[in-house]
Amino acid sequence: MSILVVGSVAFDSVETPHGKVDHCLGGAATYFALAASNFTPVRVIGVVGEDFMPRHEKVLTDRGIDTRGIEHAPGLSFHWTGSYVHSLNEAKTLGTDLNVFAAFEPKIPAEYRDSEYLFLANIDPVLQLRVRSEMPRVKLVCGDTMNYWIADHRENLLKVLHVLDVLLINDGEAKMLSGESNLLKAAAKVMELGPKMLVVKHGEYGATAFFCDRSFAGAKSISLPFRAPALPLAEVVDPTGAGDSFAGGFYGYLASQPELTPAVFRTAMFYGGVMGSFAVEQFGTERLQSVTRKEIEERFQLFRGISHLE
Amino acid sequence: MSILVVGSVAFDSVETPHGKVDHCLGGAATYFALAASNFTPVRVIGVVGEDFMPRHEKVLTDRGIDTRGIEHAPGLSFHWTGSYVHSLNEAKTLGTDLNVFAAFEPKIPAEYRDSEYLFLANIDPVLQLRVRSEMPRVKLVCGDTMNYWIADHRENLLKVLHVLDVLLINDGEAKMLSGESNLLKAAAKVMELGPKMLVVKHGEYGATAFFCDRSFAGAKSISLPFRAPALPLAEVVDPTGAGDSFAGGFYGYLASQPELTPAVFRTAMFYGGVMGSFAVEQFGTERLQSVTRKEIEERFQLFRGISHLE
Repeated sequence: MSILVVGSVAFDSVETPHGKVDHCLGGAATYFALAASNFTPVRVIGVVGEDFMPRHEKVLTDRGIDTRGIEHAPGLSFHWTGSYVHSLNEAKTLGTDLNVFAAFEPKIPAEYRDSEYLFLANIDPVLQLRVRSEMPRVKLVCGDTMNYWIADHRENLLKVLHVLDVLLINDGEAKMLSGESNLLKAAAKVMELGPKMLVVKHGEYGATAFFCDRSFAGAKSISLPFRAPALPLAEVVDPTGAGDSFAGGFYGYLASQPELTPAVFRTAMFYGGVMGSFAVEQFGTERLQSVTRKEIEERFQLFRGISHLE
Repeated sequence: MSILVVGSVAFDSVETPHGKVDHCLGGAATYFALAASNFTPVRVIGVVGEDFMPRHEKVLTDRGIDTRGIEHAPGLSFHWTGSYVHSLNEAKTLGTDLNVFAAFEPKIPAEYRDSEYLFLANIDPVLQLRVRSEMPRVKLVCGDTMNYWIADHRENLLKVLHVLDVLLINDGEAKMLSGESNLLKAAAKVMELGPKMLVVKHGEYGATAFFCDRSFAGAKSISLPFRAPALPLAEVVDPTGAGDSFAGGFYGYLASQPELTPAVFRTAMFYGGVMGSFAVEQFGTERLQSVTRKEIEERFQLFRGISHLE
């Protein structure tokens, strides 16, 4: 089934201990779409500027991604400059040039209206909410956010949380959003805000899925979460997009399945880790552009092998 | 098969957000022995002072632990004072009164000489090495250490690493010992120093086992480690002894098995997490004094349930 993703399509200039790239294709929706497209059809809504060339769009269309919802506006594309020179675990933002993204007004093309899965990547909660309300009949809604929206746009963000099925955030965001330092307590508080499922990403330590008490994925209680591993990697070339790629693997797998069972949610957590582990192997979206379904399946078995007793 | 453990038997005064205890029974060898005794016979070598009463010894003997190697010396027992008020992830040491432990000279009773498994808890590497050399015929040697020995007694510690089969440390110690911030690279460097297997504990995120290239546990390469989960707990009452209890569950299970196969090492990692999760539920050794084998098996199944796809 088709996923509709709304979010940033951008250019990144990144420095890591492995080198430097200038203006490579990036953005949350880009990483998400590339990762998810291995599992299911993906449609993108975003805005780009005049620096977004046919060769950039080809990166997406080559993987079967529907780009008809990417609006071309006068001016430059969103450009993020960051450094991981001091720590591969946290980006130091050196510059955020919103450019055409500052006036982003998501428009849903008619041919996208039958999408059954909606992914609201990390953008202004006001826009997330608007897109959500325009897609009332989707089967599942999953969203991401970040510390900036949690701290300074909390009221709007809370409205989004009310209409989300799945929220994907990292440890720091879960703690910030809940005011709790204990992961389990933080998860319980976050799910009181609306989401029926919460995925908390722990970087190199994997991710934990929490299910609320209500009937969702057959879960009875948040006291029995699910922990998926991350692959210990000797070389993390560029961590940019790891979280969005996790989301793409997770949500892409879900959308590819005929039924959402507890086993499907667990497997999706593993595919999230798998796609995140590919994303960081090369700069930018390079690795996601070349990865094959066979490699994905092999790595899935590797994830299973490093975490299962037999 | 019997485990011989050499390490501290002590008293702890601890403050956590859940309250305060004064002079409760503690020490690495105590936590290790209590955890391991659920799986296999355990013999302890340590030294205590005149404040160590029959009721304290009874805590150990009630669980079938052999305490004949605990020497009673004039003076007071080792006493540690610590606080977790600011963070449950890291103890703030407020006082370390070595007392009789300062002059500890481990003596191996004749009736301990046939022990097949040796655990060198976190003590001076000079003492670890001496005990190791006096037990040349043990089947497996496992050891722990801490930042203090890594920083200030490195040469002696390196001699210990040469004669260890398994080293159990935490993330920070692995990085300090290797000088590498990447976990996989750190593990490779640490194993070049001697250990055939390395267990790195990640606190609330579980633990990772690395196996060296040489023939050990059937492992072919350290690039395929094994990740065991930790149980997300809503209440961590007192983190003291969690690492030693992990070691006790891990090593106790190993020693209880007729053969050391890769599957046995994986299962041992889970039992390590299980015993660590019990230890932190109450102050001091309280929970380990009451835990039953049935509860341990139930929690093992819980660990499996939160980490396995089916």
